Amino acid sequence: MDTIAVKAFGTQSAEANLEQMQIDRRTVLEKDVEIDIMYCGVCHSDLHFARNDWGMTQYPVVPGHEIVGKVTQVGSGVTKHQVGDIVAVGCLVDSCRSCNSCQNDEEQYCPEWVGTYGGFDKHLNSPTHGGYSEKIVVDEGFVLRVPKGLDLAGIAPVLCAGITTWSPLRHWKVSKGSKVAVVGLGGLGHMALKLASALGAEVTLFSRSTNKMDDAKALGADHVVISTDDAQMQKAAGQFDLIIDTVPYEHDLNPYVATLATNGTLVVVGYLGPLDPMLVTVPMIMGRKSVAGSLIGGIAETQELLDFCGKHNITSDVEVINIQEINTAYERMLKSDVKYRFVIDMKSLKD
Amino acid sequence: MDTIAVKAFGTQSAEANLEQMQIDRRTVLEKDVEIDIMYCGVCHSDLHFARNDWGMTQYPVVPGHEIVGKVTQVGSGVTKHQVGDIVAVGCLVDSCRSCNSCQNDEEQYCPEWVGTYGGFDKHLNSPTHGGYSEKIVVDEGFVLRVPKGLDLAGIAPVLCAGITTWSPLRHWKVSKGSKVAVVGLGGLGHMALKLASALGAEVTLFSRSTNKMDDAKALGADHVVISTDDAQMQKAAGQFDLIIDTVPYEHDLNPYVATLATNGTLVVVGYLGPLDPMLVTVPMIMGRKSVAGSLIGGIAETQELLDFCGKHNITSDVEVINIQEINTAYERMLKSDVKYRFVIDMKSLKD
Repeated sequence: MDTIAVKAFGTQSAEANLEQMQIDRRTVLEKDVEIDIMYCGVCHSDLHFARNDWGMTQYPVVPGHEIVGKVTQVGSGVTKHQVGDIVAVGCLVDSCRSCNSCQNDEEQYCPEWVGTYGGFDKHLNSPTHGGYSEKIVVDEGFVLRVPKGLDLAGIAPVLCAGITTWSPLRHWKVSKGSKVAVVGLGGLGHMALKLASALGAEVTLFSRSTNKMDDAKALGADHVVISTDDAQMQKAAGQFDLIIDTVPYEHDLNPYVATLATNGTLVVVGYLGPLDPMLVTVPMIMGRKSVAGSLIGGIAETQELLDFCGKHNITSDVEVINIQEINTAYERMLKSDVKYRFVIDMKSLKD
Repeated sequence: MDTIAVKAFGTQSAEANLEQMQIDRRTVLEKDVEIDIMYCGVCHSDLHFARNDWGMTQYPVVPGHEIVGKVTQVGSGVTKHQVGDIVAVGCLVDSCRSCNSCQNDEEQYCPEWVGTYGGFDKHLNSPTHGGYSEKIVVDEGFVLRVPKGLDLAGIAPVLCAGITTWSPLRHWKVSKGSKVAVVGLGGLGHMALKLASALGAEVTLFSRSTNKMDDAKALGADHVVISTDDAQMQKAAGQFDLIIDTVPYEHDLNPYVATLATNGTLVVVGYLGPLDPMLVTVPMIMGRKSVAGSLIGGIAETQELLDFCGKHNITSDVEVINIQEINTAYERMLKSDVKYRFVIDMKSLKD
């Protein structure tokens, strides 16, 4: 099929830095939307994938799944978007559309969902490439509307960091008066604070250090509990209806389970691996507590979130960088040295 | 206060056999019901408690919290029960009645719930004693009605083994067409099969051995999956909305999590301790799966279960013993040598 060549930033191997390259996009099909990318958020997954931390990367890889841009072309069958619209693309660009999960608007759990990068483009018969590029071509069903009036760099991280915390807030029915806690204050955690607070919940941040106190409160936390302080942890026992654990590395969940209320749920959204130290069942049984996982969100739910952000004027706190700074940004991200998300201004790729 | 002396079977120490002793019951207060105990089920917890396996036993202890009997006397303020009624008492004989859990008919999660044995009787100012005895005196709010027409020995285990599996079936909204699996075929497991089946679920038993196949199907299982057979386990992947894990010892939950459907929950009701091998978060995140605990059930829920058993003619499969056989029964229970619950005919204590 016909393709167009676009500039991109990616890598040819796990060890190499990201550098400029050229990739092919398909020309628009009947239901496709061609998007000129304005901003792309930098997610921890981008780094994991570029460096093959999960052992499944095919090279070359072009990361990026927090995409905001302007529609430059649409296929003949497109009804949802028009040339000139400001739109967004998140972690998914396709799914089977017929399984239970797809029927239930939970495409993220479709066994055949296609990642924005590292997935497989059945039209091009090659791996998909992400948003560190000039343009992307996506089926209209996976292209989202961006409400007017929002900072476009700040909205990009909503597509992954935002929806990853929004989906559990909605699935576990957080509303006015719910008691929600967030573990960890990074890209995901800072969005969780903003969103839970905007939903009317009473919000607590668990943090290991006192120096995040002011930031947390500015972001929407009503309380900060220092998780290394036994007295504070003891005081927090039995309180929370929902805990969103955004910490991306191995850590002990048991102290947080102790702070769940009866019928409460702790949702892991950041850490992939075995629960070491081991989870102990006693407090789970004694209070019908759950430990769960949750993955990004569905397309309808992501649109719901964007609309919610529009209504409440919520965006991510970002540091805008040029694409040429991406390798440095990865190193800083590894040290949590960003408040709270890097976003690439894609104009820098065109210069 | 006034007391009456009743015959009981209990133990004075963790090492000693159970033997006949005499205990005091309070004389009926305004809201109390005095019950002549006809049958008492033998629960694994009875043994754990008698032998101080949980390190919290005060001696002497008289176990038993699956009690069926006849009302012999009621206090002046009792409205729910009459002399001559066949009634039941389960694991709880009191709670604070004002906390959230009590207000929500979830007395089992009240921080001040009083166990039928090993709890504290505030009127007698001494530990509560269970159903291995002639009589028990219980506040009417914790005394349940037994529907007519049921085998009374068989209904006793419903008060613990039954409600422990019924509560998660109801909390996680099992109904016609739900796919439910049960891990382990003992006292709890055999009730789980009967109840899930009667609720209209498609029911699977996970078992380590093929020799439980016929029994499982007779008890209501539509399928049996041999958990040591990798091919069978692989075939079961992604299937179940709810798994009730009744296994009382350390075991690997990860293979069962793999058989949960998206949004599915594995509920641990049997094992108290750390999850060794460690639970791995990846499949939980990738399918929004939960691992939860659940403890017995509330009073209203237990009444609902008894009524359900009446309507569907469900009782436990029991082996009726005399109280003098209790020490042998404990040894056999440790070897899972019972189908599926021992129940003491309390007439034997009167002889």
